[in-house]
Amino acid sequence: MNINFSERYPEMKAAFGFEVDQILFSEQSPFQKIEILQTPGFGKVLIIDGCIMLTERDEFVYHEMIAHPPLFVHPHPEKILIIGGGDGGTARECLRHPSVAQIDLVDIDELVSQACLAHLPAIAGALLSEKVRCRFEDGVAYVKNCPERYDLIIIDSTDPISVGEGLFSREFYQNCHRLLREDGILVNQSESPSWLPKIVKGVHSKLSAIFPRMHFYQAHIPTYPSGHWVFGFASKRYHPVEDFQQDRYRSSGMKFRYYNQALHAGAFAIPTFFQELIDDAR
Amino acid sequence: MNINFSERYPEMKAAFGFEVDQILFSEQSPFQKIEILQTPGFGKVLIIDGCIMLTERDEFVYHEMIAHPPLFVHPHPEKILIIGGGDGGTARECLRHPSVAQIDLVDIDELVSQACLAHLPAIAGALLSEKVRCRFEDGVAYVKNCPERYDLIIIDSTDPISVGEGLFSREFYQNCHRLLREDGILVNQSESPSWLPKIVKGVHSKLSAIFPRMHFYQAHIPTYPSGHWVFGFASKRYHPVEDFQQDRYRSSGMKFRYYNQALHAGAFAIPTFFQELIDDAR
Repeated sequence: MNINFSERYPEMKAAFGFEVDQILFSEQSPFQKIEILQTPGFGKVLIIDGCIMLTERDEFVYHEMIAHPPLFVHPHPEKILIIGGGDGGTARECLRHPSVAQIDLVDIDELVSQACLAHLPAIAGALLSEKVRCRFEDGVAYVKNCPERYDLIIIDSTDPISVGEGLFSREFYQNCHRLLREDGILVNQSESPSWLPKIVKGVHSKLSAIFPRMHFYQAHIPTYPSGHWVFGFASKRYHPVEDFQQDRYRSSGMKFRYYNQALHAGAFAIPTFFQELIDDAR
Repeated sequence: MNINFSERYPEMKAAFGFEVDQILFSEQSPFQKIEILQTPGFGKVLIIDGCIMLTERDEFVYHEMIAHPPLFVHPHPEKILIIGGGDGGTARECLRHPSVAQIDLVDIDELVSQACLAHLPAIAGALLSEKVRCRFEDGVAYVKNCPERYDLIIIDSTDPISVGEGLFSREFYQNCHRLLREDGILVNQSESPSWLPKIVKGVHSKLSAIFPRMHFYQAHIPTYPSGHWVFGFASKRYHPVEDFQQDRYRSSGMKFRYYNQALHAGAFAIPTFFQELIDDAR
């Protein structure tokens, strides 16, 4: 076995690596280094600045879990803003809901979408939908000046370093709050309470100061640091579990590979150390 | 950063590694190679035959989750058999329950316990309790001839290769079933549905053929392959969620770092792909 790609986890002085069969794409955009690798264990893998963004093997966990929990809580999600998400996976899951009429997707780096359309069409194909309007610009600037209003904002960002940093700021969250309708929901990828507790704590203290409801839910994503990944659920009105739209879920007939009704509630049952971490942040 | 220990995941053609400050212990027993490493990211780490068995940083997840779910379902757990578990962590968690009067711990390799008593006393100290009777012998042979009867059997084994293999066999499970009282529960560590689905499927098909109730529950254990680890819950009478002993949980006053009441139920809400994997195994 010849490990020829490794992602380093400096906080843990650790690394996760795998064999690579072929480099399918490798380019430096004005913002970041983008690579797509063919691997024997994980299928194609999208890497940005040395960090695993998605693998064909487990992208379904991340994309189902960032999209369906809020989409089955909001009673009629029609207009969605996705910040980041240039690979198209989050848009793909949102489009499965017939109520969704418009998705504005704002990603700073068009090259990510181009690379994914070329090499990961089962994920990126959603970007070509008539319902999806892609804008390749800075999400932080977009929410500052945007006149639109949304039912759901999904922040599908990279890690809070370099390009992604502004997407974890209080001002950005405040602008998102303003863009949400009176019963809107914001969901963001919030990193790992196991290995990156400071980031999760920061997300909580900022979002819970702005939104009346702020909860986290979790998923098992093996190729992200620690595999213990969480999503913030900040809501103007709806409770993430009590307001689950059971009838719509049942009548939808949708099949998922990770998400399901029992897991919707179960994902919000978080470990004690994580609850204490965020209680402590108040 | 200098990754000087790596665990290889041959099924995934991948590896996870970390920096090591110092080798505290390294010996070959008649059964396996045992190492204890001092690391900057995970504290002390116990390695057996190149696989991470526990780290000081996250052992609490595994040990709380293998012990407390069955202990808060059985109404009066008194006598427990632990197969494996020579590090002492599972016994430590069981001893927190005042109803527990006797723990028989059967591990094939005394050197694991000796090494942990010397280097990981906060975990292994439980082995010195008057309530714990350690026997260093083959668990497979022990359950074949044992005249005792137990309320709870916990199979805290290594992976199903070499020494651990017999602890995943049908005959072994049948003997465990015989040793359990009429309302007894068996819990075992069942590896990862994400990366080792064949093993989990095998555990399910064998245990569900022997026990009237068979469920899985899951936990986030970052230093195990995939971080997505599951436990089998095979029971002669009690349902793992409906029979949760809420009053005893509340009055116990026990504090946990991972486990809690909401998470008890949440842990049994498993992803769709995992449910389909075991439905398929019937």
